[in-house]
Amino acid sequence: MIRTKPKPEDLRKACVEEALAIIGESGLEHLSLREVARRLNVSHQAPYRHFRSRDHILAAVVGRAYADFADYLDERPRSLDPAEDLGNMGKAYLEYARTHPLHYRLMFETPLPNPTEHLEMMRQAAHAFSLLREAIQQLPGRTGECPAELDALFVWSVMHGLSGILRGDAITGVGIPEAMLSSAMPHVLWRLGVALGKALPAPGI
Amino acid sequence: MIRTKPKPEDLRKACVEEALAIIGESGLEHLSLREVARRLNVSHQAPYRHFRSRDHILAAVVGRAYADFADYLDERPRSLDPAEDLGNMGKAYLEYARTHPLHYRLMFETPLPNPTEHLEMMRQAAHAFSLLREAIQQLPGRTGECPAELDALFVWSVMHGLSGILRGDAITGVGIPEAMLSSAMPHVLWRLGVALGKALPAPGI
Repeated sequence: MIRTKPKPEDLRKACVEEALAIIGESGLEHLSLREVARRLNVSHQAPYRHFRSRDHILAAVVGRAYADFADYLDERPRSLDPAEDLGNMGKAYLEYARTHPLHYRLMFETPLPNPTEHLEMMRQAAHAFSLLREAIQQLPGRTGECPAELDALFVWSVMHGLSGILRGDAITGVGIPEAMLSSAMPHVLWRLGVALGKALPAPGI
Repeated sequence: MIRTKPKPEDLRKACVEEALAIIGESGLEHLSLREVARRLNVSHQAPYRHFRSRDHILAAVVGRAYADFADYLDERPRSLDPAEDLGNMGKAYLEYARTHPLHYRLMFETPLPNPTEHLEMMRQAAHAFSLLREAIQQLPGRTGECPAELDALFVWSVMHGLSGILRGDAITGVGIPEAMLSSAMPHVLWRLGVALGKALPAPGI
């Protein structure tokens, strides 16, 4: 589809949006600055004013996904109980993965442009990770012995793994009764709380 | 590459092996019974003696991956301590994902042929899952209140998530110090033990 030509001052943003649309409709292998220009009805050279290469526009797309994801985690219902707050972040994580599968794949399941060359993209990734690390640091009874980074990696593993399993096909045939699957998320969040030494609200509540 | 023509009695096995090779070299979208026949130097019709469609040969490839994965888990070092035994299974899981990335992707990160039409594939998937469920059932102090299936799903989430994160690119830029990454696996396995109410050997041991 050919869009209305964007105003010059909006071109950068329009390029990033169009790049995401191309990836979503046709797959990552069809992303090129030439295709972005064609769909925006601008000259072949126009996107180069803002992006040196395909990797640079991809890095901008992925960086925006990290920023969007971080905003989503930040907008979770807040609780004064740090364990419940972390549970709410876990739910927000799973909800984002379910409702934004393209963004999620781009952030975590797709080869990224070289991180050392795309610092803004990785700054956004580090910001999202820092929200998780900070929520963990609020948990009571933490000693300095166990780095919050490692526990954040543990929590991230649980969330990333559960979301991948629930989006995948293997789960349908491994012998978990259908009725039990609706308990999967609360059960896993509960075990996560036990693991961190402070149980989140019990499953089913 | 054109292979030596297989003996008729070996054709089924040769087709499955060639299908896996095609997926590994060219990607899933290049798998077809015609391409399998061409590479095996047999007639276009020959693979149809064993497989009704592309989905049927794909299901055989994926089923063999599940069987291979289950064998790998089964061959872990055994321990009389159920917690340590589960830890060994966790290590075997991560090791398999790292050393067999193509098999792993096919089992857990690729759309599967319709499970209800490919029962042998799903029987192999269920067998692999049952090994995990049985290891969990051996843990001391388990009551009947918490179904082993849900805890197996929890453990699977942790393993699947960690293996995906360690294979992915995002981990390089989120701000975890490089030196800490080598502690990721023992730390996550330790937290997993805490979650299940019985700590596995402490990290670093």
